[in-house]
Amino acid sequence: MKKLLIIGIGAGNPEYVTIQAVNALNEVDVFFVMDKGTAKEKLIALRKEIIERYVKDRDYRIVEATNPERRLAESDYVRTVEDLNRDKQQVFERLIGEELKDGECGAFLVWGDPSLYDSTMRIVAAIAQSGRHAFEYDVIPGISSVQALAAKHRVALNAIGRPLQITNGRTLAEGFPENVDSVVVMLDAQNAYKQVAGEDLDMYWGAYVGTPDEILIAGKLHDVMDEIERTRADARQRHGWIMDTYMLKRRGGSASEEG
Amino acid sequence: MKKLLIIGIGAGNPEYVTIQAVNALNEVDVFFVMDKGTAKEKLIALRKEIIERYVKDRDYRIVEATNPERRLAESDYVRTVEDLNRDKQQVFERLIGEELKDGECGAFLVWGDPSLYDSTMRIVAAIAQSGRHAFEYDVIPGISSVQALAAKHRVALNAIGRPLQITNGRTLAEGFPENVDSVVVMLDAQNAYKQVAGEDLDMYWGAYVGTPDEILIAGKLHDVMDEIERTRADARQRHGWIMDTYMLKRRGGSASEEG
Repeated sequence: MKKLLIIGIGAGNPEYVTIQAVNALNEVDVFFVMDKGTAKEKLIALRKEIIERYVKDRDYRIVEATNPERRLAESDYVRTVEDLNRDKQQVFERLIGEELKDGECGAFLVWGDPSLYDSTMRIVAAIAQSGRHAFEYDVIPGISSVQALAAKHRVALNAIGRPLQITNGRTLAEGFPENVDSVVVMLDAQNAYKQVAGEDLDMYWGAYVGTPDEILIAGKLHDVMDEIERTRADARQRHGWIMDTYMLKRRGGSASEEG
Repeated sequence: MKKLLIIGIGAGNPEYVTIQAVNALNEVDVFFVMDKGTAKEKLIALRKEIIERYVKDRDYRIVEATNPERRLAESDYVRTVEDLNRDKQQVFERLIGEELKDGECGAFLVWGDPSLYDSTMRIVAAIAQSGRHAFEYDVIPGISSVQALAAKHRVALNAIGRPLQITNGRTLAEGFPENVDSVVVMLDAQNAYKQVAGEDLDMYWGAYVGTPDEILIAGKLHDVMDEIERTRADARQRHGWIMDTYMLKRRGGSASEEG
């Protein structure tokens, strides 16, 4: 029997790794590191840094594989991701079939938490369901960029007794959700917060949170949005990539809001 | 100057503690442990277990304080929590003023993640704003019960490209939120999922997740809800308390749904 671990390594700070993840890393024979192109070189370096830092007195192999490119022609976002995941599944199946021996443990290290806006679990579940490969697998949670952002700004995600929505830029651009005071946005390449600038909101923004390059900006959305747009563009150009997250919270009004 | 740390210790498994939290625990002179009454004895024991397990070669004090009781007479939930937090703030201020010396580091250990349905950050921020005590403070994120639940069921929190809502039982009882496929419910004492039994949903439920007492049940909401209600009542009676979380996901239909 083969074993696979999907290990959340946290978002940014190598010290976000949990004791459970450290123990899991020390069970692994083969680390599968997916190459996401030059823009994500830093993320690959961070994975290797985590492996070197936490794996003690154990032989392991690192197998690098190239992540398929997103097929940009598709206009439907969900279809595009599903196509991409099917391509990734083929790569994963080859890794499991050819690079992992019976009795060995392989691992995918997932940035942040594997349960939030990441396809690894979905792809591995599809392979397990296909019946083409005999393996068992486990998932190990990690600190997400959402939690890192909240901790750095020292602000709660939810208002007292109120729901929180976690979404992406594409969805936020359709409008601030109803019946929700707090929204966290991941994966926004288009500055979607500008689409809801008419609402009375506080914005808590962070890029490269938990890393030495961390940038944090907070304030009334209307007051900080231009600064954030500029800072974001500058940082993306300087670093060659950007990983950022933000929270929008309704201001004032009911006593249930954040102070 | 005094220093305070609000440390997320994860939800359930002592191995959910991060390396960052372990390092923080080893800076602490005084741990403030809030007594929440007999029902929460296990949670207090887990905090002490974590301190003993991870703090090495360092002297520290544990100061226990009694958490104020919720004033049950209030009908307004938010008001009730705000009153409770004001009472807690008085206790916290006494601890910071009387139990923590200048130059020392004090810590509150928060179950799960301090940013999700927990008042510690809010209370400490209010004390900092009051100007009555000079201290600096930091927040350290932890694995929430939401993430532990998703990892154990090996299911993503969001459908591809779709938002996720994290809410409580009281809010869910008003109806399954619109424009959302995935809802995670924390703090539901009233089996609120039964109020949305008319919807076509999958339910992923877990109690004491990450502990030796862990119970997991998953299936179509309509098929599993009675079993969950019974299991929940039995477990609460057997253990004297319950800590559970669940996820509801829309079934079938669009290709964006979970498989």
